[in-house]
Amino acid sequence: MRRFEQPRRIRFSDCDPAGIVFYPQYFVMFNGLVEDWVSDTLGISYAGLVMQRRVGLPTVHLETDFRAVSRLGDEVTLALQVQRLGHRSLQLQLNCFGRGADDVRMAARQSIVTTSLDTHRAVPVPDDLRQAIERWQGGA
Amino acid sequence: MRRFEQPRRIRFSDCDPAGIVFYPQYFVMFNGLVEDWVSDTLGISYAGLVMQRRVGLPTVHLETDFRAVSRLGDEVTLALQVQRLGHRSLQLQLNCFGRGADDVRMAARQSIVTTSLDTHRAVPVPDDLRQAIERWQGGA
Amino acid sequence: MRRFEQPRRIRFSDCDPAGIVFYPQYFVMFNGLVEDWVSDTLGISYAGLVMQRRVGLPTVHLETDFRAVSRLGDEVTLALQVQRLGHRSLQLQLNCFGRGADDVRMAARQSIVTTSLDTHRAVPVPDDLRQAIERWQGGA
Amino acid sequence: MRRFEQPRRIRFSDCDPAGIVFYPQYFVMFNGLVEDWVSDTLGISYAGLVMQRRVGLPTVHLETDFRAVSRLGDEVTLALQVQRLGHRSLQLQLNCFGRGADDVRMAARQSIVTTSLDTHRAVPVPDDLRQAIERWQGGA
Repeated sequence: MRRFEQPRRIRFSDCDPAGIVFYPQYFVMFNGLVEDWVSDTLGISYAGLVMQRRVGLPTVHLETDFRAVSRLGDEVTLALQVQRLGHRSLQLQLNCFGRGADDVRMAARQSIVTTSLDTHRAVPVPDDLRQAIERWQGGA
Repeated sequence: MRRFEQPRRIRFSDCDPAGIVFYPQYFVMFNGLVEDWVSDTLGISYAGLVMQRRVGLPTVHLETDFRAVSRLGDEVTLALQVQRLGHRSLQLQLNCFGRGADDVRMAARQSIVTTSLDTHRAVPVPDDLRQAIERWQGGA
Repeated sequence: MRRFEQPRRIRFSDCDPAGIVFYPQYFVMFNGLVEDWVSDTLGISYAGLVMQRRVGLPTVHLETDFRAVSRLGDEVTLALQVQRLGHRSLQLQLNCFGRGADDVRMAARQSIVTTSLDTHRAVPVPDDLRQAIERWQGGA
Repeated sequence: MRRFEQPRRIRFSDCDPAGIVFYPQYFVMFNGLVEDWVSDTLGISYAGLVMQRRVGLPTVHLETDFRAVSRLGDEVTLALQVQRLGHRSLQLQLNCFGRGADDVRMAARQSIVTTSLDTHRAVPVPDDLRQAIERWQGGA
Protein backbone atom coordinates (compact mmCIF):
# COMPACT_ATOMS: atom_id res chain seq x y z
CA MET A 1 0.00 0.00 0.00
CA ARG A 2 1.37 3.38 -0.97
CA ARG A 3 2.55 5.72 1.77
CA PHE A 4 2.79 9.50 2.02
CA GLU A 5 5.47 10.58 4.46
CA GLN A 6 6.73 13.80 5.94
CA PRO A 7 9.45 14.61 8.47
CA ARG A 8 8.37 16.62 11.50
CA ARG A 9 10.40 18.08 14.32
CA ILE A 10 8.74 17.92 17.72
CA ARG A 11 8.23 21.49 18.87
CA PHE A 12 8.10 23.18 22.25
CA SER A 13 4.41 23.90 21.63
CA ASP A 14 3.74 20.18 21.00
CA CYS A 15 5.01 19.24 24.43
CA ASP A 16 3.51 19.07 27.88
CA PRO A 17 5.01 19.65 31.33
CA ALA A 18 6.56 16.18 31.06
CA GLY A 19 8.58 17.37 28.03
CA ILE A 20 6.83 14.88 25.73
CA VAL A 21 4.19 15.30 23.05
CA PHE A 22 0.77 16.06 24.54
CA TYR A 23 -1.26 13.41 22.75
CA PRO A 24 -3.97 15.62 21.16
CA GLN A 25 -1.13 17.40 19.40
CA TYR A 26 -0.45 14.24 17.35
CA PHE A 27 -3.86 14.69 15.77
CA VAL A 28 -3.05 18.31 14.96
CA MET A 29 0.16 17.15 13.27
CA PHE A 30 -1.68 14.49 11.27
CA ASN A 31 -4.30 16.99 10.16
CA GLY A 32 -1.44 18.99 8.64
CA LEU A 33 -0.16 15.83 6.97
CA VAL A 34 -3.55 15.18 5.37
CA GLU A 35 -3.67 18.80 4.18
CA ASP A 36 -0.28 18.51 2.48
CA TRP A 37 -1.11 15.14 0.97
CA VAL A 38 -4.33 16.51 -0.53
CA SER A 39 -2.78 19.76 -1.76
CA ASP A 40 0.68 18.66 -2.86
CA THR A 41 0.39 14.99 -3.74
CA LEU A 42 -3.21 14.70 -4.91
CA GLY A 43 -3.03 18.17 -6.46
CA ILE A 44 -6.36 19.39 -5.03
CA SER A 45 -6.35 22.58 -2.99
CA TYR A 46 -7.32 21.65 0.56
CA ALA A 47 -8.17 25.29 1.29
CA GLY A 48 -10.31 25.43 -1.85
CA LEU A 49 -12.07 22.22 -0.85
CA VAL A 50 -12.96 23.59 2.58
CA MET A 51 -13.42 27.31 2.02
CA GLN A 52 -14.74 27.61 -1.54
CA ARG A 53 -16.30 24.21 -2.21
CA ARG A 54 -17.54 23.88 1.39
CA VAL A 55 -16.57 20.23 1.66
CA GLY A 56 -15.65 19.08 5.15
CA LEU A 57 -13.51 16.10 6.10
CA PRO A 58 -14.57 15.42 9.68
CA THR A 59 -13.35 12.41 11.61
CA VAL A 60 -16.09 10.01 12.65
CA HIS A 61 -14.06 7.21 14.19
CA LEU A 62 -10.57 7.04 15.55
CA GLU A 63 -8.56 4.21 17.09
CA THR A 64 -5.13 5.02 18.37
CA ASP A 65 -2.25 3.29 20.08
CA PHE A 66 0.44 5.36 21.71
CA ARG A 67 3.44 3.07 21.96
CA ALA A 68 6.41 5.26 22.83
CA VAL A 69 6.91 8.86 23.80
CA SER A 70 8.22 11.57 21.49
CA ARG A 71 10.31 14.30 23.09
CA LEU A 72 11.02 17.94 22.37
CA GLY A 73 13.45 18.13 19.45
CA ASP A 74 12.82 14.60 18.16
CA GLU A 75 12.82 14.28 14.39
CA VAL A 76 9.90 12.01 13.62
CA THR A 77 8.28 10.82 10.41
CA LEU A 78 4.54 11.13 9.91
CA ALA A 79 3.05 8.62 7.47
CA LEU A 80 -0.35 8.17 5.87
CA GLN A 81 -1.88 5.27 3.95
CA VAL A 82 -5.37 4.92 2.50
CA GLN A 83 -6.92 1.72 3.79
CA ARG A 84 -10.32 2.09 2.25
CA LEU A 85 -11.97 4.54 -0.09
CA GLY A 86 -15.75 4.34 0.29
CA HIS A 87 -18.62 6.17 -1.33
CA ARG A 88 -18.73 8.91 1.30
CA SER A 89 -15.80 7.99 3.46
CA LEU A 90 -12.12 7.37 3.66
CA GLN A 91 -10.17 5.23 6.08
CA LEU A 92 -6.62 6.27 6.79
CA GLN A 93 -3.80 4.52 8.58
CA LEU A 94 -1.61 7.08 10.33
CA ASN A 95 1.77 6.37 11.86
CA CYS A 96 4.38 8.35 13.65
CA PHE A 97 7.82 6.79 13.44
CA GLY A 98 10.91 7.73 15.43
CA ARG A 99 14.26 6.35 14.30
CA GLY A 100 13.26 3.91 11.61
CA ALA A 101 10.19 1.83 10.81
CA ASP A 102 10.53 -0.33 13.94
CA ASP A 103 10.23 2.63 16.26
CA VAL A 104 6.48 3.24 16.07
CA ARG A 105 5.55 6.05 18.41
CA MET A 106 1.88 6.18 17.54
CA ALA A 107 -0.45 4.34 15.18
CA ALA A 108 -4.00 5.36 14.34
CA ARG A 109 -6.88 4.33 12.15
CA GLN A 110 -8.99 7.31 11.24
CA SER A 111 -12.33 7.18 9.45
CA ILE A 112 -13.21 10.39 7.69
CA VAL A 113 -16.52 11.28 6.07
CA THR A 114 -16.93 13.88 3.36
CA THR A 115 -19.63 16.33 4.36
CA SER A 116 -21.29 19.51 3.23
CA LEU A 117 -20.14 22.30 5.52
CA ASP A 118 -23.55 23.93 5.11
CA THR A 119 -25.56 20.96 6.37
CA HIS A 120 -22.84 18.90 8.12
CA ARG A 121 -24.35 15.86 6.36
CA ALA A 122 -22.37 13.26 4.44
CA VAL A 123 -21.94 13.78 0.71
CA PRO A 124 -20.21 11.58 -1.85
CA VAL A 125 -16.44 11.92 -2.02
CA PRO A 126 -15.96 14.58 -4.74
CA ASP A 127 -15.05 13.03 -8.10
CA ASP A 128 -11.74 14.82 -8.50
CA LEU A 129 -10.65 13.79 -5.00
CA ARG A 130 -11.70 10.18 -5.61
CA GLN A 131 -9.90 9.99 -8.92
CA ALA A 132 -6.77 11.58 -7.51
CA ILE A 133 -6.71 9.08 -4.63
CA GLU A 134 -7.21 6.13 -7.00
CA ARG A 135 -4.49 7.41 -9.30
CA TRP A 136 -2.12 7.86 -6.37
CA GLN A 137 -2.95 4.42 -4.96
CA GLY A 138 -2.26 2.85 -8.35
CA GLY A 139 1.09 4.64 -8.73
CA ALA A 140 4.48 3.25 -7.79
CA MET B 1 -21.36 3.26 37.30
CA ARG B 2 -20.67 6.62 38.88
CA ARG B 3 -20.22 9.64 36.61
CA PHE B 4 -18.28 12.88 36.99
CA GLU B 5 -19.77 15.66 34.89
CA GLN B 6 -18.95 19.23 34.01
CA PRO B 7 -20.61 21.81 31.79
CA ARG B 8 -18.43 23.33 29.08
CA ARG B 9 -19.17 26.11 26.63
CA ILE B 10 -17.72 25.60 23.18
CA ARG B 11 -15.23 28.40 22.59
CA PHE B 12 -14.02 30.25 19.53
CA SER B 13 -10.59 28.68 20.07
CA ASP B 14 -12.14 25.18 20.05
CA CYS B 15 -13.55 25.67 16.57
CA ASP B 16 -12.23 25.24 13.09
CA PRO B 17 -12.97 27.12 9.85
CA ALA B 18 -16.21 25.12 9.63
CA GLY B 19 -17.36 26.72 12.91
CA ILE B 20 -17.43 23.36 14.69
CA VAL B 21 -15.15 21.78 17.27
CA PHE B 22 -11.82 20.73 15.77
CA TYR B 23 -11.71 17.15 16.97
CA PRO B 24 -8.31 17.19 18.78
CA GLN B 25 -9.76 19.93 20.93
CA TYR B 26 -12.17 17.41 22.48
CA PHE B 27 -9.19 15.61 23.94
CA VAL B 28 -7.87 18.87 25.36
CA MET B 29 -11.27 19.45 27.00
CA PHE B 30 -11.33 15.94 28.46
CA ASN B 31 -7.83 16.33 29.82
CA GLY B 32 -9.14 19.29 31.78
CA LEU B 33 -12.06 17.18 32.99
CA VAL B 34 -9.69 14.50 34.28
CA GLU B 35 -7.61 17.19 36.04
CA ASP B 36 -10.67 18.57 37.83
CA TRP B 37 -11.95 15.11 38.72
CA VAL B 38 -8.59 14.19 40.28
CA SER B 39 -8.12 17.51 42.09
CA ASP B 40 -11.65 18.37 43.15
CA THR B 41 -13.51 15.07 43.43
CA LEU B 42 -10.76 12.64 44.34
CA GLY B 43 -9.04 15.30 46.45
CA ILE B 44 -5.54 14.68 45.07
CA SER B 45 -3.67 17.60 43.58
CA TYR B 46 -3.20 16.88 39.89
CA ALA B 47 -0.42 19.48 39.71
CA GLY B 48 1.26 17.89 42.72
CA LEU B 49 0.98 14.45 41.13
CA VAL B 50 2.65 15.61 37.92
CA MET B 51 5.08 18.30 39.05
CA GLN B 52 6.16 17.22 42.55
CA ARG B 53 5.52 13.48 42.57
CA ARG B 54 6.55 13.11 38.93
CA VAL B 55 3.72 10.73 38.12
CA GLY B 56 2.50 10.87 34.52
CA LEU B 57 -0.89 9.79 33.21
CA PRO B 58 -0.20 9.23 29.52
CA THR B 59 -2.81 7.77 27.21
CA VAL B 60 -1.84 4.45 25.64
CA HIS B 61 -5.01 3.57 23.79
CA LEU B 62 -7.92 5.60 22.58
CA GLU B 63 -11.10 4.67 20.70
CA THR B 64 -13.41 7.46 19.75
CA ASP B 65 -16.68 7.94 17.92
CA PHE B 66 -17.65 11.40 16.79
CA ARG B 67 -21.41 11.23 16.33
CA ALA B 68 -22.60 14.83 15.96
CA VAL B 69 -20.94 18.20 15.61
CA SER B 70 -20.64 20.76 18.40
CA ARG B 71 -20.76 24.39 17.37
CA LEU B 72 -19.37 27.65 18.70
CA GLY B 73 -21.41 28.69 21.74
CA ASP B 74 -22.93 25.25 22.41
CA GLU B 75 -23.30 24.38 26.07
CA VAL B 76 -22.18 20.78 26.31
CA THR B 77 -21.66 18.39 29.21
CA LEU B 78 -18.42 16.47 29.56
CA ALA B 79 -18.71 13.21 31.47
CA LEU B 80 -16.23 10.68 32.81
CA GLN B 81 -16.68 7.15 34.16
CA VAL B 82 -14.07 4.67 35.36
CA GLN B 83 -14.50 1.41 33.50
CA ARG B 84 -11.57 -0.43 34.92
CA LEU B 85 -8.93 0.25 37.52
CA GLY B 86 -5.91 -1.95 36.93
CA HIS B 87 -2.59 -2.34 38.69
CA ARG B 88 -0.84 0.24 36.53
CA SER B 89 -3.66 1.49 34.40
CA LEU B 90 -7.05 3.08 34.28
CA GLN B 91 -9.73 2.82 31.63
CA LEU B 92 -12.06 5.77 31.29
CA GLN B 93 -15.29 6.21 29.39
CA LEU B 94 -15.57 9.80 28.19
CA ASN B 95 -18.70 11.36 26.73
CA CYS B 96 -19.65 14.72 25.40
CA PHE B 97 -23.38 15.34 25.54
CA GLY B 98 -25.30 18.16 23.89
CA ARG B 99 -28.91 18.73 24.94
CA GLY B 100 -29.56 15.74 27.15
CA ALA B 101 -28.23 12.20 27.45
CA ASP B 102 -29.57 11.15 24.03
CA ASP B 103 -27.54 13.77 22.20
CA VAL B 104 -24.11 12.12 22.31
CA ARG B 105 -21.66 14.27 20.42
CA MET B 106 -18.60 12.20 21.11
CA ALA B 107 -17.82 9.01 23.01
CA ALA B 108 -14.35 7.72 23.82
CA ARG B 109 -12.68 4.92 25.69
CA GLN B 110 -9.30 6.00 26.95
CA SER B 111 -6.69 3.75 28.53
CA ILE B 112 -4.26 5.58 30.74
CA VAL B 113 -1.11 4.18 32.30
CA THR B 114 0.55 5.63 35.38
CA THR B 115 4.22 6.27 34.67
CA SER B 116 7.31 7.75 36.22
CA LEU B 117 8.03 11.03 34.46
CA ASP B 118 11.72 10.40 34.96
CA THR B 119 11.82 7.06 33.14
CA HIS B 120 8.51 7.18 31.22
CA ARG B 121 7.96 3.58 32.38
CA ALA B 122 4.76 2.26 33.94
CA VAL B 123 4.52 2.33 37.73
CA PRO B 124 1.71 1.09 39.99
CA VAL B 125 -1.21 3.44 40.39
CA PRO B 126 -0.26 5.44 43.53
CA ASP B 127 -2.06 4.14 46.62
CA ASP B 128 -3.80 7.39 47.48
CA LEU B 129 -5.10 7.72 43.92
CA ARG B 130 -6.29 4.10 43.88
CA GLN B 131 -8.05 4.42 47.21
CA ALA B 132 -9.68 7.68 46.24
CA ILE B 133 -10.98 6.16 42.99
CA GLU B 134 -12.32 3.09 44.83
CA ARG B 135 -13.98 5.28 47.43
CA TRP B 136 -15.54 7.44 44.74
CA GLN B 137 -16.71 4.40 42.77
CA GLY B 138 -18.32 2.97 45.87
CA GLY B 139 -20.12 6.21 46.70
CA ALA B 140 -23.65 7.12 45.70
CA MET C 1 -13.36 51.64 35.57
CA ARG C 2 -15.60 48.59 35.72
CA ARG C 3 -14.01 45.17 35.64
CA PHE C 4 -15.23 41.77 34.43
CA GLU C 5 -13.46 38.93 36.21
CA GLN C 6 -13.36 35.17 36.03
CA PRO C 7 -11.41 32.53 37.92
CA ARG C 8 -9.36 30.15 35.81
CA ARG C 9 -7.36 27.10 36.82
CA ILE C 10 -4.11 26.63 34.91
CA ARG C 11 -4.40 23.40 33.00
CA PHE C 12 -1.93 20.78 31.84
CA SER C 13 -2.68 21.81 28.25
CA ASP C 14 -1.82 25.45 29.05
CA CYS C 15 1.68 24.53 30.14
CA ASP C 16 4.97 24.00 28.38
CA PRO C 17 7.90 21.68 29.13
CA ALA C 18 8.93 24.12 31.84
CA GLY C 19 5.64 23.44 33.66
CA ILE C 20 4.50 27.05 33.24
CA VAL C 21 1.93 28.67 30.99
CA PHE C 22 3.09 28.81 27.37
CA TYR C 23 2.52 32.49 26.67
CA PRO C 24 0.27 32.21 23.56
CA GLN C 25 -2.10 30.27 25.77
CA TYR C 26 -2.81 33.43 27.80
CA PHE C 27 -4.34 34.92 24.68
CA VAL C 28 -6.50 31.83 24.22
CA MET C 29 -7.71 32.18 27.82
CA PHE C 30 -8.50 35.88 27.35
CA ASN C 31 -10.39 35.17 24.15
CA GLY C 32 -12.63 32.94 26.24
CA LEU C 33 -13.01 35.72 28.81
CA VAL C 34 -14.15 38.15 26.10
CA GLU C 35 -16.63 35.55 24.82
CA ASP C 36 -18.18 35.12 28.27
CA TRP C 37 -18.26 38.86 28.92
CA VAL C 38 -20.08 39.47 25.63
CA SER C 39 -22.51 36.56 26.04
CA ASP C 40 -23.18 36.56 29.76
CA THR C 41 -22.59 40.11 30.95
CA LEU C 42 -23.46 42.16 27.89
CA GLY C 43 -26.22 39.72 26.97
CA ILE C 44 -25.29 39.44 23.29
CA SER C 45 -24.64 35.99 21.88
CA TYR C 46 -20.98 35.86 20.88
CA ALA C 47 -21.67 32.83 18.68
CA GLY C 48 -24.55 34.67 17.05
CA LEU C 49 -22.37 37.70 16.45
CA VAL C 50 -19.70 35.64 14.72
CA MET C 51 -21.65 32.87 13.01
CA GLN C 52 -25.01 34.42 12.12
CA ARG C 53 -24.28 38.14 12.00
CA ARG C 54 -20.80 37.59 10.53
CA VAL C 55 -19.18 40.22 12.72
CA GLY C 56 -15.55 39.57 13.55
CA LEU C 57 -13.58 40.95 16.49
CA PRO C 58 -9.98 40.62 15.29
CA THR C 59 -7.09 42.02 17.27
CA VAL C 60 -5.13 44.73 15.48
CA HIS C 61 -2.71 45.76 18.18
CA LEU C 62 -1.45 44.08 21.30
CA GLU C 63 1.00 45.15 23.98
CA THR C 64 1.78 42.68 26.70
CA ASP C 65 3.96 42.42 29.78
CA PHE C 66 4.57 39.03 31.30
CA ARG C 67 5.62 39.75 34.86
CA ALA C 68 5.52 36.44 36.70
CA VAL C 69 5.03 32.83 35.74
CA SER C 70 1.82 30.86 36.26
CA ARG C 71 2.20 27.18 37.00
CA LEU C 72 0.13 24.07 36.44
CA GLY C 73 -2.72 24.03 38.97
CA ASP C 74 -2.53 27.74 39.84
CA GLU C 75 -5.90 29.37 40.42
CA VAL C 76 -5.66 32.70 38.63
CA THR C 77 -8.13 35.49 37.97
CA LEU C 78 -8.61 36.85 34.47
CA ALA C 79 -9.86 40.43 34.31
CA LEU C 80 -11.07 42.71 31.54
CA GLN C 81 -11.71 46.45 31.43
CA VAL C 82 -12.82 48.62 28.51
CA GLN C 83 -10.37 51.47 28.09
CA ARG C 84 -11.86 53.01 25.00
CA LEU C 85 -14.91 52.41 22.87
CA GLY C 86 -14.37 53.89 19.42
CA HIS C 87 -16.51 54.03 16.30
CA ARG C 88 -15.13 50.79 14.88
CA SER C 89 -12.86 49.67 17.65
CA LEU C 90 -12.52 48.70 21.25
CA GLN C 91 -9.51 48.90 23.51
CA LEU C 92 -9.35 46.40 26.33
CA GLN C 93 -7.09 46.15 29.34
CA LEU C 94 -6.53 42.50 30.21
CA ASN C 95 -4.91 41.26 33.40
CA CYS C 96 -4.08 37.91 34.85
CA PHE C 97 -3.77 38.00 38.63
CA GLY C 98 -2.37 35.29 40.89
CA ARG C 99 -2.97 35.56 44.64
CA GLY C 100 -4.48 39.00 44.94
CA ALA C 101 -4.36 42.24 42.96
CA ASP C 102 -0.66 42.82 43.65
CA ASP C 103 0.36 39.59 42.00
CA VAL C 104 0.03 40.58 38.35
CA ARG C 105 1.14 37.71 36.18
CA MET C 106 0.38 39.28 32.85
CA ALA C 107 -1.02 42.62 31.67
CA ALA C 108 -2.09 43.40 28.12
CA ARG C 109 -3.66 46.18 26.12
CA GLN C 110 -5.57 44.79 23.20
CA SER C 111 -7.10 46.85 20.38
CA ILE C 112 -9.92 45.09 18.63
CA VAL C 113 -11.67 46.20 15.45
CA THR C 114 -15.16 45.13 14.47
CA THR C 115 -15.12 43.72 10.95
CA SER C 116 -17.34 42.08 8.42
CA LEU C 117 -16.31 38.43 8.18
CA ASP C 118 -17.24 38.50 4.51
CA THR C 119 -14.88 41.33 3.54
CA HIS C 120 -12.56 41.41 6.59
CA ARG C 121 -12.97 45.21 6.53
CA ALA C 122 -13.78 47.36 9.54
CA VAL C 123 -17.45 48.10 10.20
CA PRO C 124 -19.01 50.24 12.94
CA VAL C 125 -19.39 48.55 16.31
CA PRO C 126 -22.93 47.10 16.13
CA ASP C 127 -25.45 49.29 17.96
CA ASP C 128 -26.59 46.65 20.40
CA LEU C 129 -23.00 45.83 21.34
CA ARG C 130 -22.15 49.52 21.76
CA GLN C 131 -25.19 50.19 23.92
CA ALA C 132 -24.57 47.13 26.05
CA ILE C 133 -20.97 48.17 26.66
CA GLU C 134 -22.00 51.72 27.55
CA ARG C 135 -24.70 50.44 29.89
CA TRP C 136 -22.23 48.08 31.55
CA GLN C 137 -19.59 50.81 31.87
CA GLY C 138 -22.12 53.09 33.49
CA GLY C 139 -23.26 50.44 35.98
CA ALA C 140 -21.94 49.96 39.47
CA MET D 1 20.33 43.51 9.95
CA ARG D 2 20.48 39.81 9.19
CA ARG D 3 17.23 37.90 8.81
CA PHE D 4 16.28 34.26 9.37
CA GLU D 5 13.32 33.25 7.24
CA GLN D 6 11.12 30.23 6.83
CA PRO D 7 8.13 29.49 4.63
CA ARG D 8 4.99 28.36 6.44
CA ARG D 9 1.70 27.15 5.05
CA ILE D 10 -1.35 28.29 7.00
CA ARG D 11 -3.02 25.16 8.34
CA PHE D 12 -6.58 24.24 9.18
CA SER D 13 -5.56 24.06 12.85
CA ASP D 14 -4.20 27.64 12.70
CA CYS D 15 -7.57 29.02 11.64
CA ASP D 16 -10.67 30.15 13.46
CA PRO D 17 -14.35 30.02 12.49
CA ALA D 18 -13.71 33.03 10.25
CA GLY D 19 -11.26 30.92 8.20
CA ILE D 20 -8.32 33.16 9.14
CA VAL D 21 -5.41 32.68 11.50
CA PHE D 22 -6.48 32.86 15.14
CA TYR D 23 -3.97 35.42 16.40
CA PRO D 24 -2.42 33.42 19.30
CA GLN D 25 -1.44 30.88 16.69
CA TYR D 26 1.02 33.38 15.17
CA PHE D 27 2.97 33.22 18.42
CA VAL D 28 3.00 29.43 18.26
CA MET D 29 4.38 29.64 14.70
CA PHE D 30 7.07 32.12 15.73
CA ASN D 31 8.09 29.96 18.66
CA GLY D 32 8.79 27.24 16.13
CA LEU D 33 10.79 29.70 14.04
CA VAL D 34 12.96 30.60 17.05
CA GLU D 35 13.50 26.89 17.76
CA ASP D 36 14.71 26.23 14.22
CA TRP D 37 16.89 29.34 14.19
CA VAL D 38 18.58 28.26 17.43
CA SER D 39 18.96 24.61 16.43
CA ASP D 40 19.72 24.83 12.72
CA THR D 41 21.28 28.25 12.17
CA LEU D 42 22.99 28.93 15.48
CA GLY D 43 23.87 25.24 15.84
CA ILE D 44 22.75 24.93 19.47
CA SER D 45 20.20 22.27 20.33
CA TYR D 46 17.05 24.06 21.49
CA ALA D 47 15.83 20.85 23.12
CA GLY D 48 19.16 20.46 24.89
CA LEU D 49 19.01 24.06 26.07
CA VAL D 50 15.57 23.59 27.58
CA MET D 51 15.52 19.98 28.72
CA GLN D 52 19.14 19.20 29.68
CA ARG D 53 20.61 22.63 30.45
CA ARG D 54 17.34 23.88 31.98
CA VAL D 55 17.58 27.28 30.32
CA GLY D 56 14.26 28.92 29.58
CA LEU D 57 13.57 31.62 27.00
CA PRO D 58 10.34 33.17 28.30
CA THR D 59 8.83 36.25 26.72
CA VAL D 60 8.64 39.26 29.04
CA HIS D 61 7.34 41.90 26.66
CA LEU D 62 5.53 41.74 23.37
CA GLU D 63 4.24 44.42 21.02
CA THR D 64 2.33 43.29 17.99
CA ASP D 65 0.54 44.80 15.03
CA PHE D 66 -1.79 42.64 13.02
CA ARG D 67 -2.08 44.39 9.66
CA ALA D 68 -3.74 41.93 7.32
CA VAL D 69 -5.40 38.55 7.66
CA SER D 70 -3.83 35.25 6.65
CA ARG D 71 -6.17 32.59 5.36
CA LEU D 72 -6.23 28.81 5.29
CA GLY D 73 -3.77 27.60 2.64
CA ASP D 74 -1.79 30.86 2.40
CA GLU D 75 1.92 30.39 1.94
CA VAL D 76 3.50 32.95 4.25
CA THR D 77 7.08 33.73 5.23
CA LEU D 78 8.07 33.99 8.86
CA ALA D 79 11.09 36.18 9.54
CA LEU D 80 13.23 36.90 12.59
CA GLN D 81 15.85 39.57 13.27
CA VAL D 82 17.82 40.22 16.44
CA GLN D 83 17.38 43.84 17.44
CA ARG D 84 19.31 43.77 20.67
CA LEU D 85 21.39 41.22 22.50
CA GLY D 86 21.60 42.18 26.18
CA HIS D 87 23.28 40.58 29.16
CA ARG D 88 20.26 38.50 30.10
CA SER D 89 17.90 39.31 27.31
CA LEU D 90 17.27 39.29 23.62
CA GLN D 91 15.00 41.50 21.58
CA LEU D 92 13.61 40.01 18.39
CA GLN D 93 11.75 41.57 15.50
CA LEU D 94 9.28 39.06 14.08
CA ASN D 95 7.41 39.47 10.82
CA CYS D 96 4.93 37.46 8.89
CA PHE D 97 4.90 38.31 5.20
CA GLY D 98 2.35 37.25 2.61
CA ARG D 99 3.19 37.74 -1.06
CA GLY D 100 6.39 39.75 -0.88
CA ALA D 101 7.99 42.14 1.60
CA ASP D 102 5.29 44.79 1.18
CA ASP D 103 2.55 42.45 2.33
CA VAL D 104 3.19 42.50 6.08
CA ARG D 105 0.56 40.42 7.82
CA MET D 106 1.90 40.77 11.32
CA ALA D 107 4.87 42.49 12.95
CA ALA D 108 6.02 41.95 16.51
CA ARG D 109 8.76 42.99 18.85
CA GLN D 110 9.45 40.33 21.42
CA SER D 111 11.69 40.68 24.45
CA ILE D 112 12.96 37.38 25.75
CA VAL D 113 14.87 36.79 28.97
CA THR D 114 17.11 33.81 29.58
CA THR D 115 16.10 32.12 32.83
CA SER D 116 16.88 29.12 34.96
CA LEU D 117 13.99 26.70 34.65
CA ASP D 118 14.60 25.64 38.24
CA THR D 119 14.20 29.10 39.76
CA HIS D 120 12.47 30.96 36.88
CA ARG D 121 14.93 33.82 37.54
CA ALA D 122 16.96 35.59 34.89
CA VAL D 123 20.43 34.25 34.16
CA PRO D 124 23.08 35.56 31.73
CA VAL D 125 22.61 34.51 28.13
CA PRO D 126 24.72 31.32 27.90
CA ASP D 127 28.12 31.99 26.32
CA ASP D 128 27.72 29.59 23.43
CA LEU D 129 24.35 31.10 22.55
CA ARG D 130 25.72 34.66 22.78
CA GLN D 131 28.71 33.84 20.62
CA ALA D 132 26.60 32.03 18.04
CA ILE D 133 24.23 35.01 17.80
CA GLU D 134 27.13 37.46 17.43
CA ARG D 135 28.75 35.30 14.78
CA TRP D 136 25.47 35.02 12.90
CA GLN D 137 24.83 38.77 13.16
CA GLY D 138 28.29 39.49 11.80
CA GLY D 139 27.87 37.09 8.86
CA ALA D 140 26.64 38.01 5.41
